[in-house]
Amino acid sequence: MAMKVREAERSLPSEFERGRELRQGADGTPTLSIDQLAEDVILDYVKEKDLPYNVLSEEAGFIDRKQSRTLVIDPIDGTHNSVAGIPFYSVSLAVGTKSLRDVQAGVVMNLMTRETYWAEKGKGAYKDDERIRVRAYSPSNSLFLVYLGKYSSAQNFQVARQAMRARAMGCASLEMCLVAEGKADAYYMNCEVHERSIRVIDIAASTLVLREAGGDVVDLRGKPLDMGFDLAQRSNLLGYGDDRVKEVVL
Amino acid sequence: MAMKVREAERSLPSEFERGRELRQGADGTPTLSIDQLAEDVILDYVKEKDLPYNVLSEEAGFIDRKQSRTLVIDPIDGTHNSVAGIPFYSVSLAVGTKSLRDVQAGVVMNLMTRETYWAEKGKGAYKDDERIRVRAYSPSNSLFLVYLGKYSSAQNFQVARQAMRARAMGCASLEMCLVAEGKADAYYMNCEVHERSIRVIDIAASTLVLREAGGDVVDLRGKPLDMGFDLAQRSNLLGYGDDRVKEVVL
Repeated sequence: MAMKVREAERSLPSEFERGRELRQGADGTPTLSIDQLAEDVILDYVKEKDLPYNVLSEEAGFIDRKQSRTLVIDPIDGTHNSVAGIPFYSVSLAVGTKSLRDVQAGVVMNLMTRETYWAEKGKGAYKDDERIRVRAYSPSNSLFLVYLGKYSSAQNFQVARQAMRARAMGCASLEMCLVAEGKADAYYMNCEVHERSIRVIDIAASTLVLREAGGDVVDLRGKPLDMGFDLAQRSNLLGYGDDRVKEVVL
Repeated sequence: MAMKVREAERSLPSEFERGRELRQGADGTPTLSIDQLAEDVILDYVKEKDLPYNVLSEEAGFIDRKQSRTLVIDPIDGTHNSVAGIPFYSVSLAVGTKSLRDVQAGVVMNLMTRETYWAEKGKGAYKDDERIRVRAYSPSNSLFLVYLGKYSSAQNFQVARQAMRARAMGCASLEMCLVAEGKADAYYMNCEVHERSIRVIDIAASTLVLREAGGDVVDLRGKPLDMGFDLAQRSNLLGYGDDRVKEVVL
């Protein structure tokens, strides 16, 4: 499914307006044409193969197909990177029943580089064919990824200052995968406006990848994050590899 | 020359330690193996073709080849992105005589995607074969790129909050080229520690690209930025497309 999205996205003509607003999506944010295109590819595939899943997606909302398991998708995470030509955006796919906690499988593919992070519950995390693991925290060589923009709390800046290096890449799923593969130490999101913080579709796959790689994802009080399969729920979060990062950041 | 660097970088085996510290570079920061590799490729090319330039580079410093013009190079801008697997790092090459102001030609290539930004003084700016221009500032659809990390001033965060969206990508040359091609509105760097702010090698090419695309690069008092061809000089800066951005940010 991720490859189908990649093929469709890569073959777009350069004049395709990725950022054209079509309407309001199911979660209230505007649907951009690139999001819609990617979602259509996935929904068509689910129908064509008659996959045994309900679907929860950014634009379509919850599609009840009378199944016990639900496919939780963010067709494009990092839409505005795609629009701006920043090569850091993904498709994110996860399967579970009710919430983050019971996600059984997840896949995050960087649509530009085709690098694919994936995990099955209890079986470890992988990037393409290689097992990945979080790294030990070394303050003098640390990299923190944070959330930045109009609605970001000043705390994001304070967290960024605690690291040797910091980036704000605008794609939570891939940023959490960088933590999972031991290239970064933390992904921190603290958004002052509830409606702009993270949704379960953004992180369902990457949370499993990070947990299976030996890290964890918590809310900003330090409690393991769980979120129901529901577009209305939003949360701030910290994803990290080494427990010491949690102590430093929270 | 940029293609030579790309070929060398792309053909590195996965076990090559991009981030291995070799020694102190000419500017005082540690030389990493990926920087050294890229610099060697360029210096070999200059010698082999006996190009009529002196060279100013990150690791080697100033190489006096008794020429009037100097090739100003950053073999890898965004080294730590390369080390972390973030597909946003470049090679930056410019030719001039004494300072930013007289740079005649500049090239910035994204080493991952091969997208190439270039300009000749007085002849406009290009991305690959297409003419590029800055965009008009639209607050509701604005993207600011800022500097983030241990030594960043809180002002970077305040600037980021003034935009609809913000990123900190860790590669000044490519960030300035995103402004030049009208995908972003500003690149702002405000570093509290002089030794960590920008050097002429980082921005010699991208400053010409941005100016030729209709934008400008200024210091934080709003004066057009000039920097001599000298690794000891450092500066903070704002690169922007539309004059209104300068009013908003400074």
